[in-house]
Amino acid sequence: MGTMLGMTMDRVKVGILGASGYGGADLLRRFAKHPHVTLSGIGSRQYEGQRVDACWPQLAGAFSDLTFQDSDAVIDGCDVLVSAAPHGSATDLVVKAIEAGKRVVDLSADFRLAPEDFERWYGATHPHPQHYPGSVYGLVELHRDEIRDATLVANPGCYPTASALALAPLAACGWLGRDVIVSAASGVSGAGRSVSLGTHYSELNENYKAYKIAGTHRHTAEIETTLGRVRAQGRHLTTHGDADTPLVSFNPHLVPMSRGILATCYTRPDTDKTLSDARLLELYKEFYDGEALITVQDDLPQTKATYGSDRVIISVRFDERTGMVVALAAEDNLGKGAAGQAIQNLNLMLGVDEGVGLEPYGVWP
Amino acid sequence: MGTMLGMTMDRVKVGILGASGYGGADLLRRFAKHPHVTLSGIGSRQYEGQRVDACWPQLAGAFSDLTFQDSDAVIDGCDVLVSAAPHGSATDLVVKAIEAGKRVVDLSADFRLAPEDFERWYGATHPHPQHYPGSVYGLVELHRDEIRDATLVANPGCYPTASALALAPLAACGWLGRDVIVSAASGVSGAGRSVSLGTHYSELNENYKAYKIAGTHRHTAEIETTLGRVRAQGRHLTTHGDADTPLVSFNPHLVPMSRGILATCYTRPDTDKTLSDARLLELYKEFYDGEALITVQDDLPQTKATYGSDRVIISVRFDERTGMVVALAAEDNLGKGAAGQAIQNLNLMLGVDEGVGLEPYGVWP
Amino acid sequence: MGTMLGMTMDRVKVGILGASGYGGADLLRRFAKHPHVTLSGIGSRQYEGQRVDACWPQLAGAFSDLTFQDSDAVIDGCDVLVSAAPHGSATDLVVKAIEAGKRVVDLSADFRLAPEDFERWYGATHPHPQHYPGSVYGLVELHRDEIRDATLVANPGCYPTASALALAPLAACGWLGRDVIVSAASGVSGAGRSVSLGTHYSELNENYKAYKIAGTHRHTAEIETTLGRVRAQGRHLTTHGDADTPLVSFNPHLVPMSRGILATCYTRPDTDKTLSDARLLELYKEFYDGEALITVQDDLPQTKATYGSDRVIISVRFDERTGMVVALAAEDNLGKGAAGQAIQNLNLMLGVDEGVGLEPYGVWP
Amino acid sequence: MGTMLGMTMDRVKVGILGASGYGGADLLRRFAKHPHVTLSGIGSRQYEGQRVDACWPQLAGAFSDLTFQDSDAVIDGCDVLVSAAPHGSATDLVVKAIEAGKRVVDLSADFRLAPEDFERWYGATHPHPQHYPGSVYGLVELHRDEIRDATLVANPGCYPTASALALAPLAACGWLGRDVIVSAASGVSGAGRSVSLGTHYSELNENYKAYKIAGTHRHTAEIETTLGRVRAQGRHLTTHGDADTPLVSFNPHLVPMSRGILATCYTRPDTDKTLSDARLLELYKEFYDGEALITVQDDLPQTKATYGSDRVIISVRFDERTGMVVALAAEDNLGKGAAGQAIQNLNLMLGVDEGVGLEPYGVWP
Repeated sequence: MGTMLGMTMDRVKVGILGASGYGGADLLRRFAKHPHVTLSGIGSRQYEGQRVDACWPQLAGAFSDLTFQDSDAVIDGCDVLVSAAPHGSATDLVVKAIEAGKRVVDLSADFRLAPEDFERWYGATHPHPQHYPGSVYGLVELHRDEIRDATLVANPGCYPTASALALAPLAACGWLGRDVIVSAASGVSGAGRSVSLGTHYSELNENYKAYKIAGTHRHTAEIETTLGRVRAQGRHLTTHGDADTPLVSFNPHLVPMSRGILATCYTRPDTDKTLSDARLLELYKEFYDGEALITVQDDLPQTKATYGSDRVIISVRFDERTGMVVALAAEDNLGKGAAGQAIQNLNLMLGVDEGVGLEPYGVWP
Repeated sequence: MGTMLGMTMDRVKVGILGASGYGGADLLRRFAKHPHVTLSGIGSRQYEGQRVDACWPQLAGAFSDLTFQDSDAVIDGCDVLVSAAPHGSATDLVVKAIEAGKRVVDLSADFRLAPEDFERWYGATHPHPQHYPGSVYGLVELHRDEIRDATLVANPGCYPTASALALAPLAACGWLGRDVIVSAASGVSGAGRSVSLGTHYSELNENYKAYKIAGTHRHTAEIETTLGRVRAQGRHLTTHGDADTPLVSFNPHLVPMSRGILATCYTRPDTDKTLSDARLLELYKEFYDGEALITVQDDLPQTKATYGSDRVIISVRFDERTGMVVALAAEDNLGKGAAGQAIQNLNLMLGVDEGVGLEPYGVWP
Repeated sequence: MGTMLGMTMDRVKVGILGASGYGGADLLRRFAKHPHVTLSGIGSRQYEGQRVDACWPQLAGAFSDLTFQDSDAVIDGCDVLVSAAPHGSATDLVVKAIEAGKRVVDLSADFRLAPEDFERWYGATHPHPQHYPGSVYGLVELHRDEIRDATLVANPGCYPTASALALAPLAACGWLGRDVIVSAASGVSGAGRSVSLGTHYSELNENYKAYKIAGTHRHTAEIETTLGRVRAQGRHLTTHGDADTPLVSFNPHLVPMSRGILATCYTRPDTDKTLSDARLLELYKEFYDGEALITVQDDLPQTKATYGSDRVIISVRFDERTGMVVALAAEDNLGKGAAGQAIQNLNLMLGVDEGVGLEPYGVWP
Repeated sequence: MGTMLGMTMDRVKVGILGASGYGGADLLRRFAKHPHVTLSGIGSRQYEGQRVDACWPQLAGAFSDLTFQDSDAVIDGCDVLVSAAPHGSATDLVVKAIEAGKRVVDLSADFRLAPEDFERWYGATHPHPQHYPGSVYGLVELHRDEIRDATLVANPGCYPTASALALAPLAACGWLGRDVIVSAASGVSGAGRSVSLGTHYSELNENYKAYKIAGTHRHTAEIETTLGRVRAQGRHLTTHGDADTPLVSFNPHLVPMSRGILATCYTRPDTDKTLSDARLLELYKEFYDGEALITVQDDLPQTKATYGSDRVIISVRFDERTGMVVALAAEDNLGKGAAGQAIQNLNLMLGVDEGVGLEPYGVWP
């Protein structure tokens, strides 16, 4: 497994845990077209024993030889495990897979932070801190080299992907100011498929609101961690290398739409250079030069341009009156913010083209 | 051109007219991944000389060697023309392409109806009635055989695709009752990208309404024409064969969403057989057996399951109290209802696998 | 109580059960401005002991002297009870209030149907059939006279209000055809505030679907019952008078919006008169002449025009090709379809102006 | 006119210019219930000569004695003019009304800024700078006293109302930091009823984006001006008094919903006091104590709670990790952000209860 065989490569057996969540749906849709992967098993406690279309009407007819299984069967049957189960619930399973010699892409938060940070932000003792040193943080464009050989990739959170990518070029120059504010907004699918008054249609439709602001959202730590690495290491990061971690004020909002994140990031740049929109755009374009799934553009990004895609669209502005830089990144929270990036990580681990099975272009309208 | 060469086939040069409309956007997105097609030119009066992303933010970076051209250049440069320009505006261009030896898939209404019907429903003299006898109606699942060798394919309308497919199994049995009512609903993209108070966000959001009901919508004729062919010819149709055309009461509604059509069709079946849900579902499943882009399912269809896809999802119910059959079909109006079916037609014409470049599964959520 | 005292009338003490549901919210909003009513108590099991704004953020600051109470306290403290609790759960309470001498407007289905119909459609034995003969069906425009003196008013369902009002003028002429089809659509608030996958934002947004069609939705019986009374009694109905009940095929759909119902009703009229749009519109305008909360208009109705209002907007068309009549009615399902009509009933019972506290005009956009 | 006559006061004749825009619609809806106002005329170039319901379907039946008139007729017939026409187009008319002895509430931007600021931000010479010194800025809660006797009230912009009210308590303490960032978001009705690709349903639905950020939106000046007055004058402002104007980085976003603004405001407070959520909330509650249309609450505000209302809901948080204050204000952009505040101003000018005809509570869901 894992050997690179190009077009004639044997298909790798991939199992998915948490396949009945929204991240799972987007994984399934992409794997249905992935030329190097055979889906060997899909796990879901709620739908165990049922067919895919019992859970996902849009996939009726796909994977007709599969039914949802229990976790052990999924792990046993796969070469690589992609876990889309929420943090906490799947840590033991991820570790079990690792210890059975499988490689894992974990979409949960369990291995995104150093155990001490995890415990502070998630309010729980980390059950397997010994696996953190062997894990790699899967923000592909910044960590690409170490992902290829990784056994355990911690797939980044949706907000941290957009926020860190929006600010990384500034951080790499040492320009993050004393205050770094991320005012971000997400579609409702970021809250998952669980039912609650907080995801009820009639409560959210025609409603825009802030939630978990002012230092209370867990993604804060993940954004700070990545920016800290960029400040210390520059463009190409290692998960366990140096860090110079900033404080970030992260403030998420909920938008009445299904998909999409826009991170609008503010900082007064710590530099005596003369800035302008053009100068900043040039900096950003150089920083992300050659990245197929990152587009730096002159126009302001909009979430719709990333709908159903695996791309991040970034732009930046300089407010000459106030001296503030405003950096913006849009993505599909389930694409580059979750399932798309997981498969991008998987492709790297398999040694195949990084973009195989991915979708660079959004569905419009 | 047009010979089947499998994986090593030369790419066919395809030009698109009307590439700045929503049908055009979905054509571009599909062609970006089509292995047998090279996009040779894209036409748009409004964006002539500009790059793709000036019109389509979701396609930034795609087709970077193309700019929008005038129609003549698009026609000259292609082997096959796909015209997504509206009816009337592009008839001359379609005919010009035909007469220059190109094959054409025409998404407009110009060649969907016999000239006398066109003139009655569209209120204009048909400028090129001599080309109707050589055209083929591109509702793939019912007209497949004659499409392969067609020079000019009239791609069906969005409502007629869903409505005719929902009712065809009944029509083929001779079961259409005296009254056939189609109560259909569409997302707003069906109205195109032109600006008007009728497509203004604040006017349509949180609004559901009927429009052009009671025999005033032009798609009525197209639905009747197809059902008339099915009644006379059965399962496999020829455009210019016999017809036994019924009257249909077609009543469209507008739904506050971007994409999706659901046709809910009512008729009291003209049969003395004992009907039931199970009996009807069996009939429908047999009728569409083997069709990759038609799913007949027990559950009621919902538009979201087809979002971004090229599939039609169909179900049927028998109301035992009233004796009414209710047949339902959901589709993405821009997928199977427009661009997806156009490429399905193109694939047939090229002799390649019918589903190449198409998307069977929807984006959920 | 119940005597008419004009501007100097003592305020009537009204208690609400089920005040934490959407019907409750719209009752509270209207009572906050009602000049003849003092809200004496509000009931909710879930929010008992809490203030109004714990449940309803839009009402922060209103009714600051009230907290949610248990049902007994609400009943004891009121002169008139308005019960917005769901069917089944509140029948005992409604009966208790009646037997304690209170007058009641009941928004549940418990007393809308004759007990034998209730049992057939709701699948449960009616616990208090002895109170049906004393109840009055509160579809105001058709039952106005008997409501004034009623002790127990069964407030109609949302779909039946729109559907029956759309078809009543035809029924009164004896023109309902053999087939009567109601193809209706509702915003999501009709499903209430309870959480479920079926009311989850990400599942319903950009989704349009049929549900409980072909004779399986309970509102079918209510529509048939009212039309049966109109056929037998004409314009002014008594709940317990004659009926000539038709069969109706009722087919509801769910629309991705919060509020609004549109009923699109089809029948081939049973008449040898020459029909036209103009003739039908004239008939409808005469039938509803003088009704402040019913507007018959030439333009097709749209739900947005009723958003937040207590009005029904109706129009009608004749399809000359097929001979079909299409009658349409739009309303806010929580306004005229629930809370608004409940207060209209209450006003009649109190002998005050029928429109007091109501809102004839919608919020646009 | 203008004397307070209580219940027996003669109705004041009010004319509306720009009655076919969204601000106009909300004015009409409120005036339909205003006990002290008779609508004497409504102006609209586009609908001149037509009835109200030709423009506004939700108002069918209202104001049946009025048709849209030309501006001169509206001005001639009124005692007080409320102009909802856009800036620039109506300045001459407003001045004409003033010079004819009418009092005016002007919803446009023409008199919100000092002429030199107007010219800088709006890029046009102010045609009537001589009327600025006599005008009053109608942000009611901060300018109440001078509004009562005003002849010309400049009704504030939608974003400035929310943003300035969110930050005023901090500004009054002298606590605005060096950087003041307003990251705001609005529903689409803020863009008016004019058609454009930028307000097209299919382009905006499922889309969230920033626009006119980084010092390019004209409302920046209005926010700075009000905060400058608060810094210099404290709680009770005069339009032409002292100012100590800060720089504000104002960054608006567009949300796929019809109504609602949320301003999320960030500043590192310039104080050595120990702050906390509780301390800040206390400060805010004191600052707005007794204001009927401002609610300071512990929970974070959401736009839906203000839908269709004339209220602003405010909360505030202290981010202990970063030292940042986050102040938030939600409003209906057409309510307190436009028509509601205009009528609040009118009520003050007429000497009647400030809340007459207004709606404190939102429509939920």
